[in-house]
Amino acid sequence: MKVVIIGAVACGTKTACRLKRLRPDTEIVVIDKDEYISYGGCGMPYYLTGDVSDIDELRRTGFEALRTPKFFYEAKGFEVLTRVEATEIDRKKKRVKIKYLDTGKTDYLEYDKLVIATGSTPKKPPFPGVDLDGVFTLSNLHDAIKIKERLVAGKVKNPLVIGAGFIGLEVVESFGESWELPVTLLEYFPQVLPRLIDKELSRIIVNRLREKGVQIKLNARIKEIVGENGKVKGVRTEDGFYPADLVLLATGVRPNSELAKKAGLLVSPFTGGIVVNERMQTSDPDIYAGGDCVEVTHLVTGKRMVMPQGSLANRQGRVIATNIAGGHARFKGTVGAFILKCYDMAIGGCGLCLETAKAEGFTHARNALNIQHERAHFFSIRCSYYNLIYDFKTGRVLGFQSIGPFTDGTLARVHAISSILPYKPHIEDLIELELAYSPPFNSALDPIHNAAHIAENTMYGRVKFISWDEVLQRLKNKDPELLILDVRTPEEAKEMVKRYENWINFPYEGARFRIKELPKDKDLMLVCSVGTRAYEVYRWLEAEGYTRAWVVEGGVALVRDWGEDIK
Amino acid sequence: MKVVIIGAVACGTKTACRLKRLRPDTEIVVIDKDEYISYGGCGMPYYLTGDVSDIDELRRTGFEALRTPKFFYEAKGFEVLTRVEATEIDRKKKRVKIKYLDTGKTDYLEYDKLVIATGSTPKKPPFPGVDLDGVFTLSNLHDAIKIKERLVAGKVKNPLVIGAGFIGLEVVESFGESWELPVTLLEYFPQVLPRLIDKELSRIIVNRLREKGVQIKLNARIKEIVGENGKVKGVRTEDGFYPADLVLLATGVRPNSELAKKAGLLVSPFTGGIVVNERMQTSDPDIYAGGDCVEVTHLVTGKRMVMPQGSLANRQGRVIATNIAGGHARFKGTVGAFILKCYDMAIGGCGLCLETAKAEGFTHARNALNIQHERAHFFSIRCSYYNLIYDFKTGRVLGFQSIGPFTDGTLARVHAISSILPYKPHIEDLIELELAYSPPFNSALDPIHNAAHIAENTMYGRVKFISWDEVLQRLKNKDPELLILDVRTPEEAKEMVKRYENWINFPYEGARFRIKELPKDKDLMLVCSVGTRAYEVYRWLEAEGYTRAWVVEGGVALVRDWGEDIK
Repeated sequence: MKVVIIGAVACGTKTACRLKRLRPDTEIVVIDKDEYISYGGCGMPYYLTGDVSDIDELRRTGFEALRTPKFFYEAKGFEVLTRVEATEIDRKKKRVKIKYLDTGKTDYLEYDKLVIATGSTPKKPPFPGVDLDGVFTLSNLHDAIKIKERLVAGKVKNPLVIGAGFIGLEVVESFGESWELPVTLLEYFPQVLPRLIDKELSRIIVNRLREKGVQIKLNARIKEIVGENGKVKGVRTEDGFYPADLVLLATGVRPNSELAKKAGLLVSPFTGGIVVNERMQTSDPDIYAGGDCVEVTHLVTGKRMVMPQGSLANRQGRVIATNIAGGHARFKGTVGAFILKCYDMAIGGCGLCLETAKAEGFTHARNALNIQHERAHFFSIRCSYYNLIYDFKTGRVLGFQSIGPFTDGTLARVHAISSILPYKPHIEDLIELELAYSPPFNSALDPIHNAAHIAENTMYGRVKFISWDEVLQRLKNKDPELLILDVRTPEEAKEMVKRYENWINFPYEGARFRIKELPKDKDLMLVCSVGTRAYEVYRWLEAEGYTRAWVVEGGVALVRDWGEDIK
Repeated sequence: MKVVIIGAVACGTKTACRLKRLRPDTEIVVIDKDEYISYGGCGMPYYLTGDVSDIDELRRTGFEALRTPKFFYEAKGFEVLTRVEATEIDRKKKRVKIKYLDTGKTDYLEYDKLVIATGSTPKKPPFPGVDLDGVFTLSNLHDAIKIKERLVAGKVKNPLVIGAGFIGLEVVESFGESWELPVTLLEYFPQVLPRLIDKELSRIIVNRLREKGVQIKLNARIKEIVGENGKVKGVRTEDGFYPADLVLLATGVRPNSELAKKAGLLVSPFTGGIVVNERMQTSDPDIYAGGDCVEVTHLVTGKRMVMPQGSLANRQGRVIATNIAGGHARFKGTVGAFILKCYDMAIGGCGLCLETAKAEGFTHARNALNIQHERAHFFSIRCSYYNLIYDFKTGRVLGFQSIGPFTDGTLARVHAISSILPYKPHIEDLIELELAYSPPFNSALDPIHNAAHIAENTMYGRVKFISWDEVLQRLKNKDPELLILDVRTPEEAKEMVKRYENWINFPYEGARFRIKELPKDKDLMLVCSVGTRAYEVYRWLEAEGYTRAWVVEGGVALVRDWGEDIK
């Protein structure tokens, strides 16, 4: 059997290696336009930081072999042709027209099965100036090498990153933390990690980045990238000019599906991805496709989307190999699980964030925010945030996000939720999860349990939450109907009580004896450090017939981590 | 409604707090024999280490309130009577006879609903000398305080721990690491964490503890604890004497179910636990029970067992409260998830280990061991071990264990597997899991995927494994049929090739061209660092008709972490 694979980064080489192990008699040729193949693209930000000192580290196996065509031939038994482009697929004759980029020579490769793993290309927004010297994307090793060269040569004094997604945030850390450069981050949306995390969590990240010296402009409307003598000098937005001698565009990618489209394969006009079934077959059953160039099913919404991630590309490559070898494997879809390190934070999530859930038709979507010490409180470290998205009417779990100190517990909770999300769990299922416990790792009830409890209590009408945004607005407006009940200890509350006349201390211990002192004609906003005590006092208030009471979501911990002057 | 709760540690107080929040009008009385209540028992080893400096830290809430009867009365609204014992349950009159331990006075408490949360008692093995001064268990704060006092006073020079379960291993670390004492650990079984982890993993832990200076005796048959003038002097086993001035018995616990039994409630003669349904009701529907004193269903075997864990007790308390309040909550059972820190290791697992799986009737149970760098290899840290237990015939996942460096990825993988274990997943389901990836956290394919791939490849007959035990035995016996093919690089292999004449180097790169050089009349044992390269060469061998080939499970990494002199 002859197999041709177009693309030799993640999905393509994975397919070839696995297929050769399953069917050593298969003849496989892998081609790639680039001379760099089979590299760990997700590691590029760490080449910039210096965690990865040599670019070849991103091309090595765990046992230190460099993944060159020679390696693949000698160890794995298949051929890799680099600097070779596939220009046409002739499905009738079952052959691929190729072009040797160095000589211009063309040739044909015949196939019984073909695999398209052509990856993605960074979106270049249509700003004037995107082609100036000093404007980069970070989509392959050439980019990484060029940026690192400038950094090492001391030519970068004020870098600027456009786009606050995964790569944007990782590279901001490289510039700001490892190179100690004053870095600017511009983002079109009013938050970082748009459509990935809720805005409450975004504000924590933005505040932390600002504390670290990053200049962040959200809602940035870029007019042009400004140059002088062909070199970038800065970025002009609707409301200002940001000087920069290096600009990184991290504004997403689009699937490389032109070749497939030209061959008459089904390509989605909506996502731009090649359409494949669960077996990763295109509309031509002899042609498979995988990696960044295909569209996949979102397992929460059921809709098709692109999800360019190295981990999915590897899994899809394995599925393709199994199926070509005559087995039966499937890739059912994605739950959009992600994890990233940004400065001292671990940020992760899966499923839908609140905004996306609503946009996808889950009109009753709500969030339940749990804040706690990562481990048992006597092993205290900084606060971690766990944000659960659920359907208020049905109790279905829709998504989850977490921010915590690197490297502790964020991965653990994202792993747990992303593992069960395909089973369409309900809040009750999360409450029933068994999650291992010991004080150096967590608390007796895991943060997942606590977030689910908040959701359940909300669904059963046992508590009502209000956002700090509304409370702060009314506090600022000196709203006469507003009364903040700070149920912390007098010591914890004294500063705020002194500052605002409608901020009173109503200590948690003993609160239940004093409920009747409280007015029924005011909006009582219950505040404590993270919400535990406020919830308890809410229950006493309700029992006494107080209907105008709310727990302020996230307590003082959240609003403080937003950088607000609340103590 | 009047509710009486017997026991005020984890389940009892959780029940009371939640019930009071759901139904503030409930009259609740909680009684406990001890004066210390509502403490974090799992934190006691960390009081010994000094991570927890003050015993009261184990009794504090996250917001620094001390959980005393006064606190529960003022903040939570229920009464706690300490130093009060329940001596009898009169189910007809629906009342509990109580005894005030300080005065001897007796009284009755009437109930509409009763909750039994009487916990467990450490098993004291019937050795002569278990009551000597200096022999301790660690089951409540009194024990912890007494042991710490001796440590602080410098009265402990050579502590000895009997039992290598959770508490045993945690306390060994306290003595050995925090107090820098020469500590001895005696274990009846031939491994540590018996019936929790496989022996391959146990050997890694044993070796690591020995490197840390712990004296470990497995298969220990204790004859007596030896004393002098009423004070412990050491422990005598069948084959030796171990001097000790402090002996900690960590040999498990038994449920405190006598009171329930006396009241005619159903108590299992097999487990000793109180029998409850999913709603945590005993055989008397007005009496609930939870925590260490009940038996629960194991969700993999379907059998009833005791599982004394603080996290389960808390979850059960919540279930009981919801049900008493008129809701409907259930505790379906346990998957036996655990996690612990021991020196610089994180050790965790869930479900069944191989031995237990076989004992429980899964006669085709096998294990698939994956070893890898915790994170992407260019973020290399020490090796982590992931051991998956599965049914070779059906592919059903039965259990999982992991050892890795504290605190990285062990919790994440245990959380993921324990979350889906109730769904009765198959190997294929693990392969299809979506697990978030980024280089500072893991590799593109998660260790869970890789372990599942090994299991799948084994099930499909694509690889055969052999244990180091057998290989080392045959190597020692100079078995003429044995040939070890070290497929590492010449540099990696040279030391072993020099040492053994039937250990030859057959480098992975280029191996496929040289297959025919190999004899077909020998048992070819393929060795590399963790197994990746050996598997690939195995596939070439099979394609060439070699039937006498095996991959040595775990490679050099495993056997080296056992402390064997293999390089």
